Amino acid sequence: MPETTLIDTDALVIGAGPVGLFQVFQLGLQGIHAQVVDVLEQAGGQCIALYPDKPLYDIPGLPYSTGRELTQRLLEQVAPFKPAFHFSQQISQLKRQADGRWLVATPQQQFLTRTLFIAAGVGAFVPKELKLDGLAAFAGNQLFYRLPRPEQLTGRQVLVVGGEEYAVDNAIALAEEGPHQAASVTLVHRRDVLQASPETLKKLAELRANSRITFIAGQITGIETHGDRLTAVAVNTPDNQTLSLPLDALLVNQGISPKLGPVAEWGLAMERKQLRVDPASFATSEAGIYAVGDVNSYPGKKKLIVCGFHEATLAAFAAASYLDPQASGVLQYTTSSALLQQRLGVQANR
Amino acid sequence: MPETTLIDTDALVIGAGPVGLFQVFQLGLQGIHAQVVDVLEQAGGQCIALYPDKPLYDIPGLPYSTGRELTQRLLEQVAPFKPAFHFSQQISQLKRQADGRWLVATPQQQFLTRTLFIAAGVGAFVPKELKLDGLAAFAGNQLFYRLPRPEQLTGRQVLVVGGEEYAVDNAIALAEEGPHQAASVTLVHRRDVLQASPETLKKLAELRANSRITFIAGQITGIETHGDRLTAVAVNTPDNQTLSLPLDALLVNQGISPKLGPVAEWGLAMERKQLRVDPASFATSEAGIYAVGDVNSYPGKKKLIVCGFHEATLAAFAAASYLDPQASGVLQYTTSSALLQQRLGVQANR
Repeated sequence: MPETTLIDTDALVIGAGPVGLFQVFQLGLQGIHAQVVDVLEQAGGQCIALYPDKPLYDIPGLPYSTGRELTQRLLEQVAPFKPAFHFSQQISQLKRQADGRWLVATPQQQFLTRTLFIAAGVGAFVPKELKLDGLAAFAGNQLFYRLPRPEQLTGRQVLVVGGEEYAVDNAIALAEEGPHQAASVTLVHRRDVLQASPETLKKLAELRANSRITFIAGQITGIETHGDRLTAVAVNTPDNQTLSLPLDALLVNQGISPKLGPVAEWGLAMERKQLRVDPASFATSEAGIYAVGDVNSYPGKKKLIVCGFHEATLAAFAAASYLDPQASGVLQYTTSSALLQQRLGVQANR
Repeated sequence: MPETTLIDTDALVIGAGPVGLFQVFQLGLQGIHAQVVDVLEQAGGQCIALYPDKPLYDIPGLPYSTGRELTQRLLEQVAPFKPAFHFSQQISQLKRQADGRWLVATPQQQFLTRTLFIAAGVGAFVPKELKLDGLAAFAGNQLFYRLPRPEQLTGRQVLVVGGEEYAVDNAIALAEEGPHQAASVTLVHRRDVLQASPETLKKLAELRANSRITFIAGQITGIETHGDRLTAVAVNTPDNQTLSLPLDALLVNQGISPKLGPVAEWGLAMERKQLRVDPASFATSEAGIYAVGDVNSYPGKKKLIVCGFHEATLAAFAAASYLDPQASGVLQYTTSSALLQQRLGVQANR
């Protein structure tokens, strides 16, 4: 593994969902630049992972938007502050330093930050695991949760597990003719019903008709190995047969589920799996660490985006005064403040 | 004065600024219909009265909007809930009834409401008074703070007081040729500098050149009366002369200023002129009365619209459970809840 670099920063935001993005914006208004880490490959959090095309009616001033549209609007709003995004990374470590700063690490990157904003929502969206004795040992080698680089599966016998768009799409990508075509593709789902778009299902039907993809309904119940190789999985079919399906690689695409992950193990005060915060500042039990959005808990808490926006706002004020206790703390308005407009890079009379 | 009618309601919102409007929206999501009273002639509060065309950069998801645009967006958002607006009315009375409901009165209307939401901002925007001994007695007869119906000033000697757009505009309207032209128009402002648009100032210059408007710089220091008639005002000029300016009518347009007004006298717990609230519910010290937006105070409070949106949201939840203690209180999302979408009058798959 390459050595990780160390980024020194005033503020690190965990989570690039709508609340994490608005946290970046409010920090920007305070003159504080932010680093942002998210486990997903792009910004948007639940808005992108769970409902990119579904309607949101309760964002103030937006009678109707989609998760994707809200994300785009917020990305536009934070753009003047040029946040540094670190996608596809999950925080694995948090450690207070002697000088009060926090050392925060992902497998790829280390940060030394004076303030930390946990906007982790319901947790990191990670692929749902296939839990079978002995399987985890093959991760990254024969077991994958995301489609690896095409050449890794070229000419191999691949078994894809899952019944939704992402699984079916990946099976199709592997089976289609081309330089990186797999030797064989088997799609396994517990039921005979797949949830994918009509176009995807049509493409799948064609590839099944050409015997490029084999579909099997059934539950994977165990693995078979030979030496240090995974050689097959056992599948229990609806009519109670047990099949042994040989494979070189297993691609598990059973959806994603949120996982609070290591945040739960950092010693912050918690309450029913949420981080307890002071609603005047959204500070956690640790100095310099704030929690905003669905991840926090306080009297009256509702897990709504509109509430997260408020929380991020007060957390930014609290952090500004934590970072600079001499700061005036006088409230300024973007409508009239030359300072805020300068930070936003705008001129009021546009 | 005509007898006032009595409206029986579950919810009354005082203030149709952005936070009052979002209060209506959140109540609507809870299935609660709202009556809304505002002292202004239209919705928007400070957004309309103070900065209709100025930029707002910090509304989440709206990288740029004006006060007018935000108001229009919120009006569109509340439309499905068909709130009943009562404009140009100021609350003058609040009284708890034996059954726990609140009797709320304006000079034009009475309400019997189970819950009350004070979203009064920095107070009611009322015209700045001209304070001179004995002057108030002529209000509505010879003294006006808004331009009365044109025929009321036709052929009269009118003196307009003020130096901003609204005052200059009114002087022009009274002086221009037409069926309702005043006999004479004098504009008085304490300084020789007027704050109005170039077009308005050009028009004024033309009318002054034609002797249709006389401009006098000076401070009004007293009134002259004859019987029960106001006959003139005394004006002290910058070079310390005292003029007596005869008039039939006095139109005072010295701007508007916010006034908390009777809210301050209702016996609700206060803190530095703000209503003290519980940040879990935004309830005041009186059961059934909530305060949201700039009018309230709690630890960490910032007078920002984004915070008011959150406050209105939690207040709506609190009121829903106050109105129906049996209600489940389970959080539903507009993205997925058939009930909320029915209330909004939308179908998700649009």
